Amino acid sequence: MRMIKWENGSVITPDQTKLPLEEITLKLFTVEQMAEAIKTLRVRGAPLLGAAAAFGIALGAYTSNAQTLSELLADLEAAGTTIKKQRPTAINLFWATDRVLNMARAYRGHVEGLRIAVIEEAQKIADEDAAQNYAIGKNGSTLIKDGDTILTHCNAGELATVEYGTALGVIRAAWEAGKKIKVIADETRPLLQGARLTTFELQRDGIPVTLITDNMAGYVMSKGLIDKVIVGADRIVQDAVFNKIGTYSVAILAHEHHIPFYVAAPKSTFDLTCKAAEVTVEERKPDEVTHVGCQQTAPNGINVLNPAFDATPLKYVTGIITETAIYTKEHFTKFNPTFPL
Amino acid sequence: MRMIKWENGSVITPDQTKLPLEEITLKLFTVEQMAEAIKTLRVRGAPLLGAAAAFGIALGAYTSNAQTLSELLADLEAAGTTIKKQRPTAINLFWATDRVLNMARAYRGHVEGLRIAVIEEAQKIADEDAAQNYAIGKNGSTLIKDGDTILTHCNAGELATVEYGTALGVIRAAWEAGKKIKVIADETRPLLQGARLTTFELQRDGIPVTLITDNMAGYVMSKGLIDKVIVGADRIVQDAVFNKIGTYSVAILAHEHHIPFYVAAPKSTFDLTCKAAEVTVEERKPDEVTHVGCQQTAPNGINVLNPAFDATPLKYVTGIITETAIYTKEHFTKFNPTFPL
Repeated sequence: MRMIKWENGSVITPDQTKLPLEEITLKLFTVEQMAEAIKTLRVRGAPLLGAAAAFGIALGAYTSNAQTLSELLADLEAAGTTIKKQRPTAINLFWATDRVLNMARAYRGHVEGLRIAVIEEAQKIADEDAAQNYAIGKNGSTLIKDGDTILTHCNAGELATVEYGTALGVIRAAWEAGKKIKVIADETRPLLQGARLTTFELQRDGIPVTLITDNMAGYVMSKGLIDKVIVGADRIVQDAVFNKIGTYSVAILAHEHHIPFYVAAPKSTFDLTCKAAEVTVEERKPDEVTHVGCQQTAPNGINVLNPAFDATPLKYVTGIITETAIYTKEHFTKFNPTFPL
Repeated sequence: MRMIKWENGSVITPDQTKLPLEEITLKLFTVEQMAEAIKTLRVRGAPLLGAAAAFGIALGAYTSNAQTLSELLADLEAAGTTIKKQRPTAINLFWATDRVLNMARAYRGHVEGLRIAVIEEAQKIADEDAAQNYAIGKNGSTLIKDGDTILTHCNAGELATVEYGTALGVIRAAWEAGKKIKVIADETRPLLQGARLTTFELQRDGIPVTLITDNMAGYVMSKGLIDKVIVGADRIVQDAVFNKIGTYSVAILAHEHHIPFYVAAPKSTFDLTCKAAEVTVEERKPDEVTHVGCQQTAPNGINVLNPAFDATPLKYVTGIITETAIYTKEHFTKFNPTFPL
């Protein structure tokens, strides 16, 4: 199922903050509406954010009153700036924006031609993401044994991508290949993407899923209930995988219990120009921690930390499943000469 | 501040399910009311449960229509059975009940005398717990350095005890000794005792506290923000410490980051007759995981695990702080010959 679509000058995507209790479809007409949807996590998930960014600029192209190529390019640059500043960590927001803008900057032709080319480029990014996820699923499913129970954190599912999912794409592909697998989903506080989205997707597809709170991960591992961990990624740098807060803790727990820990992500998630220490981790609003939805769970005025992501050093990662290959520890040094592991 | 008091044939204690947003005092008149308060965690925390169990039997003594010693004893035994079946893991519920019942079984005198003796024994258990916690605090505070930041899980505070707290008793004693410490509190899903109770207590006492979600523990450790971990315990057996679900994960994370991990608990928490594998871990209702308060966070009909406790093997425990001593790894084998570490 397509999670994001261009439709007659608008972008259609589910409002992920309302799931699973309400299935509401957003119809976005402007760059500002897309920016708000990204900021508030109505649209979220690293690969989906790439397509969302590209479609956001496409909305900029569609709504622009520009009469000349340079006027339109100026509007697209402004749209790109607006989109990029919504979330600082997810690399997909940046590369997808840059890809569309670079195409636009190099475009030689009529202003109306560029308008169409921008929309087509966004569509192409979305199509490529869908295809990549099916390839990730196919590659990753070779790692899954019949009867495996797989723990996942956050939602790296269809809802995080244009189609099929990354971590859940691997799970889906194994299930479609007839392997009788089970999933244990961390709820993933503060925004509960595991409780709300991962369980929703898997339940819908008939794949057995059990929900736990984040702090039960060690317990289920100690009971021998977990065969593998598979998560997605928001950015993979030279020495670490950035993913939803809590991934690092799960990786250490897996390591201590000798459970393989896999990351499933398209190559567009790689940013091998930098190391973990150089990446800005998004600090989100305190009320995500002091509240669950509208329900307050802590005293007024309490101090809070709320980093959206953490960095898992590659030493804790058994393998990275991409659309072209599965990279294991021995590859980490090879597929980029600066990989320091 | 006393968390539980006998007052003219009733027991007075705060309703901990309402904190921090509402401060409601429960007034319990019957064994059944105390049993319900224990079951629903209106009264919770291992040491406080000991006093609550004893006061529950005292309510049984006070409300009994027995005319003879043997009739009263039968009512007390029934009260003990009712109390014990509310929570299967917390050892304090059992030893306190047994202590009061053993006293009653050995009592030789008039029925009215036994009634009074039971109430006095419950009061004595409460007084002893308060005194023990001050002693735990004094012992443990020697481990805390000026400037330390301490991570704690769940609530092992005044609200978990008759007075002062165990893990938070240590923190309180260090603070009262003038050490400028800070606390980071895990929110402790599913019932959020960290978010609701630990922050509430520490904020009230002016001790700096920062709230995090459970899955941020690894992150804050990796950033060098944590100097020590201190938690309470629900039962300490030959080879492990049972405490609130998530404690085991925190212990492994502390181990991986070379951060000392301490348990603060009175000796009444020890149950050296058994090993971890023999202990029944309470599995609580699924809706604690699929909801936060009245807010649903997961799809209808989703499968859930909800163990209330986990077992942390002693190899991850740097020391156990009790009212008489701090037991470290080298002591674990000594203070009971069956300690197998």
